[in-house]
Amino acid sequence: MTDRKEFRDLAPPEAAHEAIASLALTPSPESVSLDEARGRVLAERIDAAIDVPGFDRASVDGYAVRGRDTFGADESDPRVLDLVGTVHAGTEPDVTVEPGTCAEISTGAVLPPGADAVVMVERTDDLGGEIEIRTAVAPGDRVMFAGADIAAGSRALGPGTRLTPREIGLLSALGVDQVPVRGRPRVGIVSTGDELVRPGEDLNSARGEIYDVNSNTVAAGVTEAGGEPVLYPHAGDDYDEMERLLRQAADECDLVLSSGSTSASAVDVIYRVIEERGDLLLHGVAVKPGKPMLVGRLDSAGSQSAYVGLPGYPVSALTIFRTFVAPAIRRAAGLPEPRTATVTGEFAVRERYSEGRMRLMPVGLVESDPAADDLLVYPVDKGSGATTSLVEADGVVEVPADTEYIAAGDSVEVRLFSPDVRAPRLLGVGEDDPLLSRLLDRVDAPRYLPVGSREGLRRLRDGVPDVAVVAGESSRDVDSEELGAWTREWGLVVSGDEVDGLDALVDADVRFVNRDRNAGLRATFDAALDDLADARGVSRGALADRIDGYELTVKAHESPARAVLEGRADAGLGLRTTAAALGLDFVPLGHERVAVHGAPGRTEKPAVRELAAALSAADVDLPGYDAA
Amino acid sequence: MTDRKEFRDLAPPEAAHEAIASLALTPSPESVSLDEARGRVLAERIDAAIDVPGFDRASVDGYAVRGRDTFGADESDPRVLDLVGTVHAGTEPDVTVEPGTCAEISTGAVLPPGADAVVMVERTDDLGGEIEIRTAVAPGDRVMFAGADIAAGSRALGPGTRLTPREIGLLSALGVDQVPVRGRPRVGIVSTGDELVRPGEDLNSARGEIYDVNSNTVAAGVTEAGGEPVLYPHAGDDYDEMERLLRQAADECDLVLSSGSTSASAVDVIYRVIEERGDLLLHGVAVKPGKPMLVGRLDSAGSQSAYVGLPGYPVSALTIFRTFVAPAIRRAAGLPEPRTATVTGEFAVRERYSEGRMRLMPVGLVESDPAADDLLVYPVDKGSGATTSLVEADGVVEVPADTEYIAAGDSVEVRLFSPDVRAPRLLGVGEDDPLLSRLLDRVDAPRYLPVGSREGLRRLRDGVPDVAVVAGESSRDVDSEELGAWTREWGLVVSGDEVDGLDALVDADVRFVNRDRNAGLRATFDAALDDLADARGVSRGALADRIDGYELTVKAHESPARAVLEGRADAGLGLRTTAAALGLDFVPLGHERVAVHGAPGRTEKPAVRELAAALSAADVDLPGYDAA
Repeated sequence: MTDRKEFRDLAPPEAAHEAIASLALTPSPESVSLDEARGRVLAERIDAAIDVPGFDRASVDGYAVRGRDTFGADESDPRVLDLVGTVHAGTEPDVTVEPGTCAEISTGAVLPPGADAVVMVERTDDLGGEIEIRTAVAPGDRVMFAGADIAAGSRALGPGTRLTPREIGLLSALGVDQVPVRGRPRVGIVSTGDELVRPGEDLNSARGEIYDVNSNTVAAGVTEAGGEPVLYPHAGDDYDEMERLLRQAADECDLVLSSGSTSASAVDVIYRVIEERGDLLLHGVAVKPGKPMLVGRLDSAGSQSAYVGLPGYPVSALTIFRTFVAPAIRRAAGLPEPRTATVTGEFAVRERYSEGRMRLMPVGLVESDPAADDLLVYPVDKGSGATTSLVEADGVVEVPADTEYIAAGDSVEVRLFSPDVRAPRLLGVGEDDPLLSRLLDRVDAPRYLPVGSREGLRRLRDGVPDVAVVAGESSRDVDSEELGAWTREWGLVVSGDEVDGLDALVDADVRFVNRDRNAGLRATFDAALDDLADARGVSRGALADRIDGYELTVKAHESPARAVLEGRADAGLGLRTTAAALGLDFVPLGHERVAVHGAPGRTEKPAVRELAAALSAADVDLPGYDAA
Repeated sequence: MTDRKEFRDLAPPEAAHEAIASLALTPSPESVSLDEARGRVLAERIDAAIDVPGFDRASVDGYAVRGRDTFGADESDPRVLDLVGTVHAGTEPDVTVEPGTCAEISTGAVLPPGADAVVMVERTDDLGGEIEIRTAVAPGDRVMFAGADIAAGSRALGPGTRLTPREIGLLSALGVDQVPVRGRPRVGIVSTGDELVRPGEDLNSARGEIYDVNSNTVAAGVTEAGGEPVLYPHAGDDYDEMERLLRQAADECDLVLSSGSTSASAVDVIYRVIEERGDLLLHGVAVKPGKPMLVGRLDSAGSQSAYVGLPGYPVSALTIFRTFVAPAIRRAAGLPEPRTATVTGEFAVRERYSEGRMRLMPVGLVESDPAADDLLVYPVDKGSGATTSLVEADGVVEVPADTEYIAAGDSVEVRLFSPDVRAPRLLGVGEDDPLLSRLLDRVDAPRYLPVGSREGLRRLRDGVPDVAVVAGESSRDVDSEELGAWTREWGLVVSGDEVDGLDALVDADVRFVNRDRNAGLRATFDAALDDLADARGVSRGALADRIDGYELTVKAHESPARAVLEGRADAGLGLRTTAAALGLDFVPLGHERVAVHGAPGRTEKPAVRELAAALSAADVDLPGYDAA
């Protein structure tokens, strides 16, 4: 830990943008087949090599004629021409239209020699061998001449054109089936850290292993930015292995990203490899998060590859990737900045800063008035280590280093994490509940933050969420409309028969796991303890002191039961339905009411109505659950 | 042609939407690996199967301690604890922290037994075997407890969630590597018509063959809408072959689209197959274009597949696809309507209607004031048969059947052809010129319509384009600013030596190809003829009558030369550079000036400035070209 890098001289964010812009990461152009060209960017101008159409083409079904033969014809004074043959689309004409004659012709067929116009079938009558023509046509009528659509030699599409279906159409018309496009930058992703395990593999939590979040997340971001991600096998914290991997990635890619571990030893190894086997242009950026960012070049067998080291925490890694790296990948790929990547909204709360460096603040969005497209923006700060803030935030607000605070009501610009990101249609907060989880499945694009009943009510009062879900606890202080409710049976989830009620929990020598103070279920449990304390003539505190684990609290409704299941506890505060789902025994202690409260002014929001409809239609088939 | 379908009873557009909505085209869910999950839509709720983190985790580098041992410690009164070991990330602790001791710990490592907090390394000093602790920590400080990020059993992601990088991150954290997603609807594309040839294959224009535009265009549209296109081999106009192909496609796909030929016989074959081998729900929709649209079901071996028949002309096919079919594919794939698929702009001209059916009018966009995001919208009407209108239009305006006209200045909503479509950054019109074509390569996202100098000046006067390029002809009547100019040498592109000047063109028995009257080059040629007529004391008309082909005009600058190259003519009006490029002889007749005129109020537009910069930097290295 002695040679640990402190990154004391942090570079300003502009310097990081410039350092990355100075790296060469534009790949060579390539040729792709037409059916894989959508979304790619033309590497060079395409001029038409052929006339389109390549021949004088009938625009309607009808009869090919000499225009002069029809002059003066109308409904009352038709002309009659001899029918000399037929020309179908896709066949070479085997007739010549001499004066006084005509040939049947299909839309798209070649105008036969001699003819200079087409009469549409609706203005003719077949007299059998002769055709009555009831309208006059001028030479050129109903004919598209060769090259009239696109002439050979003319400019069809310019370099840098992004290929959407319509450009694919023009290339098809020109017969181009191999399209010269800009290459996609190949971006190698090397993840580091002895503790990381690839998703799908077995995890040994006792060893402190965690799943590697950054590799697939950053890879998806690379694809979205128009690059081609290449995942390399995990490197541990070993110098030689890391050096070999980074050099291989530099050989094979235009840009190498390292990411993964948050531990100083892994970061140190990377740092040493870049210093010894490349150029370090910049280390440490005055951005929160992003202090440990590295920018440089990596030597490879042939030339050099660009290199950026991302922070280890997933939210930090994705934020730094989107802010500094994705724009460079898009530039290299020839893609424009996505138009919908920013939205503007009103800040919901007051936030203070005293950082001295630019902050990329993760924020969530909620539509406060969908009709007016009004967005509320609220900060999501769960600490950099929390992966849930990946999905609880929708983007970042760039807060300059000299900003002291953002006031509630201030207008802020949010850079979305992906162009695809939308504000959730419903923002709910409050109690963690299995029935609620199922009801949310019936709402399109909801977001639910299981912060507990007490914290949920607080947030409802502050005007951010659309609904708060409250168990037990009263909500009389908060202006809201009840959208629906149910009851759930609660008690002790146990293994064995040592605990058969609240008395035994207090009196027996058992290990207990409690819920946190924000949980409505915890308040209900404490109220039951109050009753027992009254009956025994002692204080609740006196009873609590006798419960081993009363202060051992967890935040999710299943967690106490899982502690029992894994033998880490004998009893846990929980629900009958959880005991049933995990195959554990259950000691019932009561029923509590769970209600969904709608925020004033939001109850007509479509997704809130969807949730209310789901509530009223709810087929409550969970053990211990009833309609309220 | 006798059993030709006339589609006399056209269904209203709403009926077509309803008919397509009544078709079942939602595919079964499937499982994809995490690295292919981006952009897909979750088929079911994902609950956390594990706690994240799975253990009590150090949030910083430092020392694991018992909080109680540090109480009261500060800079002036540190505590000293015995160092009993080290815990790295990714290893199982082999030490226990007893009272009075501590263990070195890395960020992300497992908190060892006995410890309940971490002191960050910055607040400690290593005394060698003992550690000086200069701050007090409470139990839980700098520790993320097991399940604090996501608890096992809690709701992680709901069904219908679109997977962007951040959701990929959460799935990674949960170790999910196989993701249950909604299937992509498989959409079979059967193209019909004896005249169609796949791009890349040889084209026989004499037989009236053209490249198949619709198959790849519609396939790209299917991909964009979230479906998976399957291209079937071409069918001609043969009933048995078409039936076999359609049944195979129905077997293999959720939806079958037919498209391609505009000829009545091919359409008739399709119509008969659907009537005899499926259900026809609707034929003919009161939409221009789209009259020949079919909606129905196709019998297959197992069940039925949905079927939609698209019009044959490419612009019509893509318009009907985007209006009626793409929304149904997106619904089946679980994708939302793209947010940026419509823009609003000001209509540039007055347009009259007398259709009696809804019109989907192709329009182009130009930014009239980029600073204010103001868009001008102008109609693109080149006839349904023109594939160039695919790239000259940006989207469609839906004009209701009872609309008599749209006035200039009216606000209209444009449905873009693709969410990726943007207004071109530069709209130029005017003369067709090889140097201009190269200069446009240096401007990002330009659109140039080679309508000729005369028509270009007319459009500039009407206020739509940003620039007009004018050859020869004066522009004194139009308010504009000249951005740059050059001269080009013009004359006769010839094969052989029979024609050595204008006199010979008039007097010898040669075939000539002229340019159209909008071309500036044509006006310059006519002025030269005027001079010759003056010299001979005759009228220009008298000379023109003696030139075989004077009235045979073509629209593109290379076309007369190509007629000479192919032996269809002996002389063509053209440029020295074209003769040189095609290896033909050239008879010089003079130099003409080509100037780029900027529209008032648009010269500060970034792309106009880019073009002006390209003009002033132009290294004019084409034969016969000079800076003006």
